[in-house]
Amino acid sequence: MSEKVIKAALLGLGTVGNGVYKVLKIQKEEMEKKIGAVVRVEKILVRNIKKAAAKVEDPSVLTNDWKAVLEDPSIEIIIEVMGGFEPARTYILEALRAGKHVVTANKDLVASNGGELLDCAAEHQCDFLFEAAVAGGIPIIRPLKQCLAGNHIQEVIGIVNGTTNFILTKMTQEGMEFSEALALATELGYAEADPTADIRGYDAGRKMAIMASIAFNSRVTFDDVTTEGITHISAKDIRYAKELGCLIKLLGLARYTETGIEVRVQPMLISESHPLAAVNDSFNAVFVRGDAVGDTMFYGRGAGEMPTASAIVGDVFDIVRNIRFGCTGRISCTCYKELPVKKADDMESRFFLRLQVDDRPGVLASIASVLGNNDVSIAQMIQKNKDGDLAEIVVVTSKVREGNFNDAMMIIEGMSVVHKVSALIRVYGD
Amino acid sequence: MSEKVIKAALLGLGTVGNGVYKVLKIQKEEMEKKIGAVVRVEKILVRNIKKAAAKVEDPSVLTNDWKAVLEDPSIEIIIEVMGGFEPARTYILEALRAGKHVVTANKDLVASNGGELLDCAAEHQCDFLFEAAVAGGIPIIRPLKQCLAGNHIQEVIGIVNGTTNFILTKMTQEGMEFSEALALATELGYAEADPTADIRGYDAGRKMAIMASIAFNSRVTFDDVTTEGITHISAKDIRYAKELGCLIKLLGLARYTETGIEVRVQPMLISESHPLAAVNDSFNAVFVRGDAVGDTMFYGRGAGEMPTASAIVGDVFDIVRNIRFGCTGRISCTCYKELPVKKADDMESRFFLRLQVDDRPGVLASIASVLGNNDVSIAQMIQKNKDGDLAEIVVVTSKVREGNFNDAMMIIEGMSVVHKVSALIRVYGD
Repeated sequence: MSEKVIKAALLGLGTVGNGVYKVLKIQKEEMEKKIGAVVRVEKILVRNIKKAAAKVEDPSVLTNDWKAVLEDPSIEIIIEVMGGFEPARTYILEALRAGKHVVTANKDLVASNGGELLDCAAEHQCDFLFEAAVAGGIPIIRPLKQCLAGNHIQEVIGIVNGTTNFILTKMTQEGMEFSEALALATELGYAEADPTADIRGYDAGRKMAIMASIAFNSRVTFDDVTTEGITHISAKDIRYAKELGCLIKLLGLARYTETGIEVRVQPMLISESHPLAAVNDSFNAVFVRGDAVGDTMFYGRGAGEMPTASAIVGDVFDIVRNIRFGCTGRISCTCYKELPVKKADDMESRFFLRLQVDDRPGVLASIASVLGNNDVSIAQMIQKNKDGDLAEIVVVTSKVREGNFNDAMMIIEGMSVVHKVSALIRVYGD
Repeated sequence: MSEKVIKAALLGLGTVGNGVYKVLKIQKEEMEKKIGAVVRVEKILVRNIKKAAAKVEDPSVLTNDWKAVLEDPSIEIIIEVMGGFEPARTYILEALRAGKHVVTANKDLVASNGGELLDCAAEHQCDFLFEAAVAGGIPIIRPLKQCLAGNHIQEVIGIVNGTTNFILTKMTQEGMEFSEALALATELGYAEADPTADIRGYDAGRKMAIMASIAFNSRVTFDDVTTEGITHISAKDIRYAKELGCLIKLLGLARYTETGIEVRVQPMLISESHPLAAVNDSFNAVFVRGDAVGDTMFYGRGAGEMPTASAIVGDVFDIVRNIRFGCTGRISCTCYKELPVKKADDMESRFFLRLQVDDRPGVLASIASVLGNNDVSIAQMIQKNKDGDLAEIVVVTSKVREGNFNDAMMIIEGMSVVHKVSALIRVYGD
């Protein structure tokens, strides 16, 4: 019995590429029975063939010539794990135009150019799959596009950046300050040499753009996402949050409202009893609320060699099934709506505010009145410990329009009795 | 533009059937854009047409004649939500043989006859989907069959029965005894009039059989599953578990080992820090460990009208996509192995044991020696409060072969110094 072979090419052989190579090797024996064909890695595009040679069984698969991959008609599946915008974007478009199916883990590219790539795939009846681009090994794209397709998704909340979740977990559980926790994350390999994209929320923002697009069937790009990082969060804020029964997490929030989609990434206080509060260390989770299914959550490893490879190989196997059944392009772009995305000022949030103020009568009242004048309802207002001549005031607001809150803050920051706004953090929930 | 209509029939219009009817109605407007066709419920098979008439817009779709459904060639999808073995099994087989695709939520039937039904579907190139049969609205079948297909699954742990999880949550959080918590569950509608299948672990066992079959690519039926219920769990055991940093949950455990598959449902102590420990009330969750993906968890509503309907409609939409692309039967039975299923005696477990014994020197030593003689290692042994002339001993064992432990217990139960075995509960983990 001759086995059916489907040839694939890997673009890139870094951590993730290496993981894919390994998983395909481990699965080799079972593939035929599982999906009706064997996936063979025919070519691997690398920059430095010598350096890559040690990583593969047969170095003759290595090439640094994209054209040799593109123009090999026997290669049906391209697995793009180079990352970055270019040349990844061009390679993917060229591959799709040549009738090759593409799997990618490239969240930057999908978050900015997903529409372009999906349109190109649809035009050529090719599959373009990117389960690995969001939350690593956690199945979330397929569940959203298929399993939960009978829902109007109302909200997607994600802890989708392992670096920041590790940092915040250390700050919470061990009382570390941000800089100390970041240093530890770097030492342990959880943070990259340049951690900017993680700690500023950009990485999470890209994943939220992709999930929002699928959840609400309307294209959202990274530019639409309001992002705020965690560099200003202090151990003190985390202690105060705890007093309120909350933790601080960097949450990606995508919400459907009648007046538009809200998509943002911000550190937020979240109740200790929420399922997301138990998501610690470098784990990721995505919480989805749908009109039929209610609350669901998907939890797991959001990054790393093998978890990311798990997602990629799942996509590759799906393409093999589609090729065998002649139904490639079966699920393409699902953005058939054009919903407006709200500006930051028009979103609604609750706020946790910590102020250092003059310790004298009337100060609390005057701050309360500024908030009230700007339609900011106060849920809680606590005078905390004194610090010399200063008192500390903690305010938790009800849900308010962000624009109104910002107007109030402009005035509060200018008040002579207010010495410092020590913290301003959003609170998840109603 | 004429819209493409795909006709479906509902078998049954109980809670779940009603949910499916509602969700299809809610999704009506978007279906065409989402999946390229509109699903129309052409017929609904009910026992009592008069009673059902109030539930539907157009009572002319109601029928009590199965042949009228089966022999209507325009009906392409059958949604079986009657439950039970017969006539559901016969109807599904007849539908598949007639070339109709089938979606079911019938865990009893799939757990016992899944192989037969999937084979029949494959023979006729039909889809037979049952996402709703396990853990209600939580996407788990598709993630296992597709997203995680690049893994060797090592373990699936499920909290997959909402009734027992509700009862154990009340016992844990409010110190209720079993009977009290069961009464509350019945009052609130979380337990059926006859709760046997839930509280004895049969319902969870059926779901575990289905998941084990998919996770390990080898058919497991309900008869293969070792089940134990929660009727003997006391509030005192839960308090003792807490002292050990654990909760008690009814866990479904499916585990791959070199010598065979273990599949069982048993109440177990589980560490408070395990993600499953935070799954409370009637929520369900499935924890999956794979060689590539590592630990993942899927959380949500395991039952109920709308969550179950969410899963069913997801399956229906998938079939519509398959019909449009001519690829029905694309993912069929994935049980291509024939792995042995271990007998209970050959499984390995840790045990929590609570004994009432004579309060005099040497008793503890003699019990320890019986355990030792049977190769049962003791991880912890604590003499608890006295109760008159009796002392209470709590033993936690290391992982042992269940047969050896049972042998030891036979002897211990016969010892004159042992007055009562008050509790014997497994402990999850190594």
